[in-house]
Parts: sequence; structure tokens; C-alpha cells
Amino acid sequence: MRVAVVGASGYTGLQLVQIILRHPHFELVAVTSEQRAGTSMGDAFPSLRGATDLVFEANDPDALVGRVDFAFTALPHAASAPTVAALRKAGIPTADLSADFRLRDSDVYTRWYGAHPAPELFGSAVYGLPEVHRAALRDAALTAVPGCYPTSVLLPLLPFLRAGLVEPSGILVDSKSGVSGAGRSANSKFLFAERDGNCEAYKVGYAHRHVPEMEQEAAAAAGQAVQITFVPYLLPTSRGIATTVFARPKGGAALGAAAARAVLAEAYADERFVRVLPEGETPSLAAVRGSNFCDLAVFADERSGTLILLASLDNLVKGASGQAVQCANLMCGFDEAAGLGEVAAVP
Amino acid sequence: MRVAVVGASGYTGLQLVQIILRHPHFELVAVTSEQRAGTSMGDAFPSLRGATDLVFEANDPDALVGRVDFAFTALPHAASAPTVAALRKAGIPTADLSADFRLRDSDVYTRWYGAHPAPELFGSAVYGLPEVHRAALRDAALTAVPGCYPTSVLLPLLPFLRAGLVEPSGILVDSKSGVSGAGRSANSKFLFAERDGNCEAYKVGYAHRHVPEMEQEAAAAAGQAVQITFVPYLLPTSRGIATTVFARPKGGAALGAAAARAVLAEAYADERFVRVLPEGETPSLAAVRGSNFCDLAVFADERSGTLILLASLDNLVKGASGQAVQCANLMCGFDEAAGLGEVAAVP
Amino acid sequence: MRVAVVGASGYTGLQLVQIILRHPHFELVAVTSEQRAGTSMGDAFPSLRGATDLVFEANDPDALVGRVDFAFTALPHAASAPTVAALRKAGIPTADLSADFRLRDSDVYTRWYGAHPAPELFGSAVYGLPEVHRAALRDAALTAVPGCYPTSVLLPLLPFLRAGLVEPSGILVDSKSGVSGAGRSANSKFLFAERDGNCEAYKVGYAHRHVPEMEQEAAAAAGQAVQITFVPYLLPTSRGIATTVFARPKGGAALGAAAARAVLAEAYADERFVRVLPEGETPSLAAVRGSNFCDLAVFADERSGTLILLASLDNLVKGASGQAVQCANLMCGFDEAAGLGEVAAVP
Amino acid sequence: MRVAVVGASGYTGLQLVQIILRHPHFELVAVTSEQRAGTSMGDAFPSLRGATDLVFEANDPDALVGRVDFAFTALPHAASAPTVAALRKAGIPTADLSADFRLRDSDVYTRWYGAHPAPELFGSAVYGLPEVHRAALRDAALTAVPGCYPTSVLLPLLPFLRAGLVEPSGILVDSKSGVSGAGRSANSKFLFAERDGNCEAYKVGYAHRHVPEMEQEAAAAAGQAVQITFVPYLLPTSRGIATTVFARPKGGAALGAAAARAVLAEAYADERFVRVLPEGETPSLAAVRGSNFCDLAVFADERSGTLILLASLDNLVKGASGQAVQCANLMCGFDEAAGLGEVAAVP
Repeated sequence: MRVAVVGASGYTGLQLVQIILRHPHFELVAVTSEQRAGTSMGDAFPSLRGATDLVFEANDPDALVGRVDFAFTALPHAASAPTVAALRKAGIPTADLSADFRLRDSDVYTRWYGAHPAPELFGSAVYGLPEVHRAALRDAALTAVPGCYPTSVLLPLLPFLRAGLVEPSGILVDSKSGVSGAGRSANSKFLFAERDGNCEAYKVGYAHRHVPEMEQEAAAAAGQAVQITFVPYLLPTSRGIATTVFARPKGGAALGAAAARAVLAEAYADERFVRVLPEGETPSLAAVRGSNFCDLAVFADERSGTLILLASLDNLVKGASGQAVQCANLMCGFDEAAGLGEVAAVP
Repeated sequence: MRVAVVGASGYTGLQLVQIILRHPHFELVAVTSEQRAGTSMGDAFPSLRGATDLVFEANDPDALVGRVDFAFTALPHAASAPTVAALRKAGIPTADLSADFRLRDSDVYTRWYGAHPAPELFGSAVYGLPEVHRAALRDAALTAVPGCYPTSVLLPLLPFLRAGLVEPSGILVDSKSGVSGAGRSANSKFLFAERDGNCEAYKVGYAHRHVPEMEQEAAAAAGQAVQITFVPYLLPTSRGIATTVFARPKGGAALGAAAARAVLAEAYADERFVRVLPEGETPSLAAVRGSNFCDLAVFADERSGTLILLASLDNLVKGASGQAVQCANLMCGFDEAAGLGEVAAVP
Repeated sequence: MRVAVVGASGYTGLQLVQIILRHPHFELVAVTSEQRAGTSMGDAFPSLRGATDLVFEANDPDALVGRVDFAFTALPHAASAPTVAALRKAGIPTADLSADFRLRDSDVYTRWYGAHPAPELFGSAVYGLPEVHRAALRDAALTAVPGCYPTSVLLPLLPFLRAGLVEPSGILVDSKSGVSGAGRSANSKFLFAERDGNCEAYKVGYAHRHVPEMEQEAAAAAGQAVQITFVPYLLPTSRGIATTVFARPKGGAALGAAAARAVLAEAYADERFVRVLPEGETPSLAAVRGSNFCDLAVFADERSGTLILLASLDNLVKGASGQAVQCANLMCGFDEAAGLGEVAAVP
Repeated sequence: MRVAVVGASGYTGLQLVQIILRHPHFELVAVTSEQRAGTSMGDAFPSLRGATDLVFEANDPDALVGRVDFAFTALPHAASAPTVAALRKAGIPTADLSADFRLRDSDVYTRWYGAHPAPELFGSAVYGLPEVHRAALRDAALTAVPGCYPTSVLLPLLPFLRAGLVEPSGILVDSKSGVSGAGRSANSKFLFAERDGNCEAYKVGYAHRHVPEMEQEAAAAAGQAVQITFVPYLLPTSRGIATTVFARPKGGAALGAAAARAVLAEAYADERFVRVLPEGETPSLAAVRGSNFCDLAVFADERSGTLILLASLDNLVKGASGQAVQCANLMCGFDEAAGLGEVAAVP
């Protein structure tokens, strides 16, 4: 199956290329980049020398018609939608990594992102969290691959909301992300000398664009509105998200760590990429770095009953490009894990 | 004033030496280390070559009598108490950086640390948080310097508890610490290749020894019991603590970010080492690294009223040795900021 | 083909496991570790949960007889030789990652490592640098996988020595290595807080055990004795080696950067894992991290004619376990690149 | 003494501010920055909150006349010279951290930097390496503070050149620098995710602008032309330079490590900021980070006689702003070490 990566010079695009190059059923036939058009991938990214001879093309979806059977779009929000619209019009199944098709309430989209550039497609994508929407993904022509933070919050939280075990309000999240989440555009804030040895919060409370996305999916699982207070931090790492979710058992009833662990274990018993850790273990970035795994653990403060859900994933893999390939595998009828077998590179 | 650092070869001991060497009123006359006895400081720590000719002595408090006017003890808990007892018996005012004299309930100490090795002194120390116990510190002969995590939790939280503005239960803390907090003993868990690019939680919920210490001081401020659920994380940095405290306004009344910021601003208006950041700014490790500052900010999720208190400090300075010197300055009648004027080394 | 990794809990052992798990022709059937015997790999290394159910066995080569068709030994020097001897006695082809079989002069071995524990096998291994000894490796039953530093020095240097283009004396090397090269044993020198932001030389001049190994292979290529002055540095990275080799054109004749680049380009034209970079580009650790590539570049100070050869590789992959698998592929008659297709994970 | 820092928002400017704030005789009265004009220092750099109330001014040297007694200029080359010219015209003694006044041959300047913007002042500055030009600095009105790399090369090398002990040709240098050396301007090449875990050479051979500066000072010491082949590397650290210098004893005579160490020890016996390490020790970035020390060591490959000189320093302190203050102290008749007493912050 011939695939294109549209927007292949950013970090998620590059990660897609790395995965597709090892994928047994995908053949990478086109990569696009406005800035790098005309440059070979190997010249732009020396890590790829000897692995591919592809040359970056300009971002022209029409030029892909007839040449590709599947497209991944890894463009910034707003820039992505028109490209996706053109690809879909040409009948090319697409996994979109931007935020343009994740939300289902257009007012919410407008409030957080501005006017939608392809309103006719709005709401038509399947939210690409395979552990939740697997069946729909098998039939999907357009997938909105979730944000990195939402994946790390939803995977531990949804089983409890779905079962009505935790209160839908007062969910508090502290989430720490590697710097690659900010992309590769030049911004002095993300210089090595500014980030090394540093850690700080940003967009605190109800300020990060990923919050409405989390709340949308959480509400769908809970069957009622869910409020999530969100504090993202920037870590001095290139990759990885480590998330703490605090939730209260419903009605004040104690759930307990063991019972809560059983909830997660059951929810993910058959999942290839979600690992519920044994009692006492905590997720780490090192254990998932470069892999498509999301590791989960659950603890409780038995005095108050507060549940503490912990998750780790690689923001560029399970938080973006790995998940996109997982979705694409489902959309194409392949083994869901095809191309995603890598374990973390340790150390 | 002649001072000794007992246990000067660990990270907090070394930080004490670095501060005392620049202190206008303290003269470092003795450093001890069981492992390094007989070695010059410069041979043990090349950073100190040319700055001091001191040679490590064995840990013998009696050998310090008559030679020093003040002692800092930076030994592990349980090892510290007998040394402190000997120093105090000899009339030497002491700032102890271990956990041995922080708690005031001996049952709590026993539960978390085992039998106390100097029960006759238990409860006799002033808790060395100058912003809270300044008056008592001026008269103190023994100070228990707070733990690094408790300092980062108490400074943002106490003004709200003291004013009865937040609920004393359901306080949730996510705190991230640099690796130096684990000390310099050889443990493969803290090797560079294990920590670089990594981040993970440990001792989750009600499991870290700093929790009873936080709760003790929080309860004293609130005038009632306080429950703190605590999730510490290990960061891939050498230094620094970044803390998020989630608290709920009392009785469900909305407090709001601006009002909450005013509470902090008023509480710390005259403090030299606590900076309440302007609206929208977040504390960072970089801004406090190497300094005795603790930076604070407050945000709110206006939908639920949840307060989000943020703090950053250097675990080895305001979280340990700088705070110890601040206490010692008070105990000795010096300017509280003597020797502590350094701003963060940026970048 | 059923394979064992003997000594699978160190960093090179773990890297071997990661590669073998994705190898199309190798099936990992046994892993050994004295410290971890009885523990499942997933419990010991959470990154491997869900990828293997193997349980560590004690290091008993006899227990592997009949169960494995090929063995990788990743034990410390001196500990390795007796195990290798037992495996070879049982007819199991072996790739040994220790230093025990790299040298061919037993006096040199004794001087640098002490008495050899399996003298009957000494000198019987093929030096496992496939780009140099490919033909011999195809027939080898025992391979001595080169050290990480020697690989990074020999690949850029040998083509010039072989062609008699540079002086065999006065070769000066400055080589920088990530901390994983020191292994995972607990040593306070390699703690995160000691290495972060740090860089320092060690074993300077003619003091590192890898020097006689380099000189042996260099002499074989040059047809005369070669002297290499070697300065290794420890980098604050987990992985990677970046090497500078200074060499003088023979007889004072100017070679020039372009001609020198042509020498490398011709030498490695057909190699899958050695990339000679275009003019002006420099090798980076990022471009090879996690991959089996060694990137090379050559520059010259045209004033003096001094050649500057630069190389980068991942010390755990092309510098150890990847190279071991490359050798094993040759020994087993597989595609030399089987299991080694990964490009660097960037960023 | 009232001082200004012109160009105070870059990394060297910020480091100057940090030092001046603790200096006993300098009072910081003005800071300039084109980009930040009108912003308070504390708003621009949160680390400085509470330490200074200064507000950035535009870069207008005339506005400083009558307000300052001494100026530090920390502007890019070419931008600096006109400002320095205006300051000098107004009679303000100046330490310039740019490259504009380091060279003494205007043809060399033009070749590497282009036309000089203040030719009337060219050649009038004292090269600000106090260990070499102390007497001249005491009388200087304008100091050209050396580059970071040249300081790390010249301090170990000059004593040998001055004594005619090493050949003036064939000097080979491998030097590794932290990323802050590249400044704080936004360039995707210096993003955290590009540099973390990475290390690579750039401007290899005779290509870096610091080479002619090194060769000028080396030639002055040797009394004859000196050729230095230079390979700079970018380290994944914020600060620090670690340099290897390879040199050959003159006439092939063996000098030996001990004799060479004695040469350094004698040369720097009375120096406050140059530490010659004991036999066997190597300089590290950690031991000098944040301090004005330059640590030196010398080794030899006794087989060939090759001398291996090692140096470490903090590029922003002894490599720039600390050295500038050291020069300023001399120019102003203060204790040369005033404000520079800090030892490295370890860990």
C-alpha cells in the first residue's frame, strides 16, 4: 500500500517516516514539506541517509492523487483541514494528526482554534483512539489522531468514567511533556540552554487546547459532562509524557487501589499497546520511549479514597505517529500492530 | 563565627560548604566525613581547590567542642540525632538538616523512621521555615531544617490554610524533584543512563516520609488536621523541585485566581526569598537554580473553583542548605540574607 | 535459529535482546544473569513487558547445550572466556562481546587484562569488524566483537593505513563516549548528578585498554606498527561515540579533503552500515542513535595537510550489540543487515 | 563605581549582570537591549526578580555618558565597534566582549569578519587575558575580552610556546563547548530536541573565527608563527568548554608529563583562577561551572613524546563575562578577584 506523509519535516512527520520505513505493508512513496521541497530526505535528515531516496515535494494534495493509497497529514491545525479535504475528495483515506477533526462541537472548535477551514468535513472523522473506537476505525475513511496529552489522560481515566466509578467533576491532571511536543520551529523558549535542567508549567487550569478534547471523550464515556483541570509541564527531555490523574470515587465510596487496578487490567486485558503495571510499579518515560506502549498504574490514598492514575507514553509514538499508524492499520485491515513492534530503546 | 559542617561530603553538605565559603560572618573551620576523613576537600571535590585548605575529619562531635561556635549537621536520619545530641550537650547551636527533629509526635516519627536515637531531644527543635517560625528561630538553639518537598508545598499552601480559605482535606500534590535529592550514594537506579530523558513517580499517595512532616505543619497553620495526597516524581535534572498543589476553596465558595494571588502577595510581601510571580507567569527551575528563592504562582480553574498553586525552588538551597543558613543567620542575629544573595545562574 | 544472550542484564545484553526480538531469523530462547536469575525479563526491565515472557537463568553454559543454536556472550572480560570455552566445546557458535578474544598477542592481553582464563582458545576468534573481516566471519565459529572506541577509530582510519596514505605514527585521537559505555554497575562516579552537564577526559594517552586493540588492527592494515595516542572523554549522553582522528599524510605530501573523502567513499561504497557524509557535513550522535550506522566525514587543514577524520556511532549498537548481530548474520549465512534496519530515532 | 552592561539580554550579558550584582565595588546602573528596551530586567529574566529594579534601555551609548564610570559591551561583532567607539570618545573605560578588537592585523579581521566598523580604534585594545597581559590591562582603557575557545587553548599552551618547548606547527585541538556559546537567538539547530543527547563537530580544521585569534596570541608568545588545527564540537550542556591540545616537544626531545606539569605549575603558581591539577586528575566541566576557574592538566604519550594538554572552563565566566570582570578589576585598580569568588555549584 502506497502512502504519503504530508508535512514530513516536523517531528511527528519524521516519526511517521521512521515507522513507515519498517512497516511490512506500507511503502512510503511521497513526503511533502513546504520548507524542504526539492531536498532529499537524507540531506534534510542525515539519520535517513541510506534508508530512503525520497525527495520532499511541496504540499500539493492534488499531486498525490493516483500515486498514493493512504495519506498521513501532519500539518499544523488550520493548515491541515484544506489538505485533508482535498485528499478525501480524491477518495484517499487519511489519518490526520492535527487538531482539526478531533472535536465534534463546532462552537468549541471555534472558541479554541478559530474558524474551521473545512466545515463540510467537520465532525466526520473517527477519533483515533483504537482502544476506544476500534470498530469505528475499521470503517473509517478519516481519522483524527488524538493529541498526546489526551491519550495519556483518557487511557487511564476512561474505564473508570465508563463504569461510573469516579466523579465526573473535580478531575485534576498534572501532565509532564518532553520538548518535542512543541515542534521544531525556532523559538528561543525551546532552546537547549533554556530547557536543560529546567521544568515549568504553562497554560495552567483550563487554558490548554487539549482540555476540550479530553473533556469531549471523557463525557462520551461517562454519559455526562466531565470537568478536567489540567496543568501541563515542560520536561527537559526530548520525548515522553508522564501524567498524573487524581479522581474521586463516586459517592465517596472507597474503591481501593487493588480494585482500581483490576478495573484497568480488565479494560486492557486484550490490548497490545496498553500495559497495566503490577502493584507498586510506576510508569516511566524510559520504558516506553520510542515504542507505541502506554504504561498505566493506579494508586490510592486510602485515607481519602483519592485515586491516583499514572500514565506514560512517548508523545511522538503512542501520542501521535505510532497511534496514527495503529489507526491506519485498522482502516486498512492490517494487523493493528504492524510496524509497531519496537520496544523502548533502553538505556 | 566559626562553623562546622558535619557530613560535608554529601550533596547538602557540599552545598553548605559552597554557601559558607561566601558568607560574610561564618568561617568554615571543620568539615567531617566518615568516608573521606584525612582527605583534603580539594582532593575530594576539585571544584573546591583553591577555595579552601580544609581536610575532612571523622564524624566526632566531641572533637569540635571549643573549636566551633555553630554546627550544621547533614547526616542521614537516625545517624544525625546522636551527633546533634552531643553538639547540643556541648552547648553548640545546631542546624540539623536530617529528618530527626522535624516531627513533633514521636509515634509518627517511629512509624515512618523507627525508634528515635535521641528521644530526650525529640520535640525540642524549631521547625526551620523562617517565613513561618522566624521569631522562634531567633531564640532557637536547635533547628530542624525542613525537607525539600515540604518547603515547596508549605510555602504556597500555608497562607490559605492559615486564613481558612481552603479545605483541609483533599489537598493533592504532584511534585517533581531533581536527582540530587536522592543523595550521592551509589545506586544503579540513579545512574545517568537510567535517569537521562526519564521521569517517573515513586512512593505514591501516602508513602513518602515527607508527607507527615507536611501534614504536621499544615495542621498547625489550619488549626485542624490536614490531609495531603502526595505524588513525587524524579526529574532528569540535578537540582530543583517543581510542585503543583491542588486545593478547593472552603465551602465551595469561589476564591478566584486574583484574590488568591493577593493572599500570597500579602503573606510574602516582606519576604526576601519568596517571590510571588505576576499574573500569567509560572515558576521555573531555571529561575531559582542555585539561589535561595522560592517562586510561587497561583491559578484557578474558574469553572470548579479549584486553586492551583505552583512553586519552584532549588532542593539543595531553599530546600536544604540555603534554608539552613537562613535559619542560622536568624539564630546568630545576622542579617537573614547573609551569604544568600546569589541569583540563579542562567542559563 | 534459537539464540541465547549470556549476560543479558547489562546494557549491551539488553541491547542485544532489543535487536533479537525484532530479528527475522533469530528466536530468543534463553537469557542469563547471575543477579537476576529467576526474574522475568519484564519484571527486571519494564520496557520488555509484553514483548517477551523469558525468565533470566543463571549463567550456566552447559544448561544451554541442546537448546540454542547460537550464543551471544556479554559478560565482563575474564568472566567471559570460560563461558565461551564451554559453549565452543559444545559446538555452539558464539559472538563474544567481551575483550577476551580481541587481541592476538597473549603478552599484550596479559599486560592489559591479566592472565587469560582460557588460553587454549586465545587467538582463535575472528575480529568482528565485518567491513574488514567479512570473509573470515562467514566461516567463523567464534567472533570477538570489537570495542566501541576501536570501531569508531578503525572505520575512518583503516582505509588510509591500508593504502599507505598516512603516517603510522603520530595518530592522535580524541573520542567522546556516552555514559552507557561504563555499564550499569552502581558507581557514584556515574550518577546522574555527577554526569549531567559534565564532560571530562579519563585514561589519557596510552592508558585505555582499547588502545592495544586499535593498534593491533591498525598495524594489520598498515603492514607495520601503528601508534595511536588516545584521549577518551565521558559525555553527558546515554549513548553514542563521537571520534576525531588526526593523521598526517605520508611523506608530507598533501592529500586534501576531497581526495581523502574519495578514499573513504570508495572503501565503503558497498557497505550498508557505513555512511560517508557529503562535503561539509559532520557526523552527529543524533543521526546514528539506536541504529547500526557509523557515519564518517573527513576534513583537512590545508595549510599543514593534517587530515581530520570524524566518526559517530551508537556505542551499544554499531559499537557492540548491533555489530555482534551483524557478525552473527554473517556466521549464520543470513542477510548481513537482518534485524538491523532501524534508522535513528530522531529527535 | 557605576557600570553599564550594553547588550545585557544575551547570555554573556546576563552572566555579567549576575556577577556585577555580587561585586563589592561595581554598581549596576544601566542595562541595554534593543529587543527588551522598556522591560524591567525581572520581567525579562525571572531569575533577577527581587535582585534588581533596572529597566532595559535602548542601546544608546550617548545616553550613558555622565551616568556610568565603566562599560561592558556584549554585542555581536560589527555591532559592537561603533558603540565602543562612542563610549571611548566619551572617555568611558570599556571591556568589550565581542571579537571586534581582539585581532591586531586588520587584514585578518577583514578576511574573517568583513570590514571593520571602527577602524580608528582597531588595534588599540589590550587583549584581555590577565594571566598574560596583566600589566597592560592595569593601564588599559579598552580591553578586548578573549573568545571562549581561545582562552581554553591559550592558557594551557602559552607556557610551552613561550619557553620554546613545543613545535609551533602541528598543534591540534579538539574542543567541546556547551550550547550557550551559540547565544540565545532562535535557531532550530539549537533547540533542546536537536541538542539533547547529541554531540557533533562544526567549522572543522581552519574554519572557526577563533582560530586566527588563537594563532595571533600563540605567535606572540612563541615569537614565531604558530599553526593550530581546530575542531570544535557542540556538547549537550548549557555551559562549559573542555579542550584537548596535542603538541609535540620541540626537536623531538621528550619532555615528559611530570616536567610538563612543572612548566604549567610554575607558570600559574601565583594565579587565582588557573588551577593546575595534580598528576592523574583530569579537568571537568562540573568543577568549574559557574566559576571563573580554568583547570589544567597535562599528560603525555611517553612512546611518542606527544603532549596532551587538557583545559576546562565555563564559557560564560572565564570564557567571557568573568574574564571581563577580571579585566575590569585590573583596569579599575581593584582586587583582581573582586566579585569572582564563587566556586562551582556542584552538583
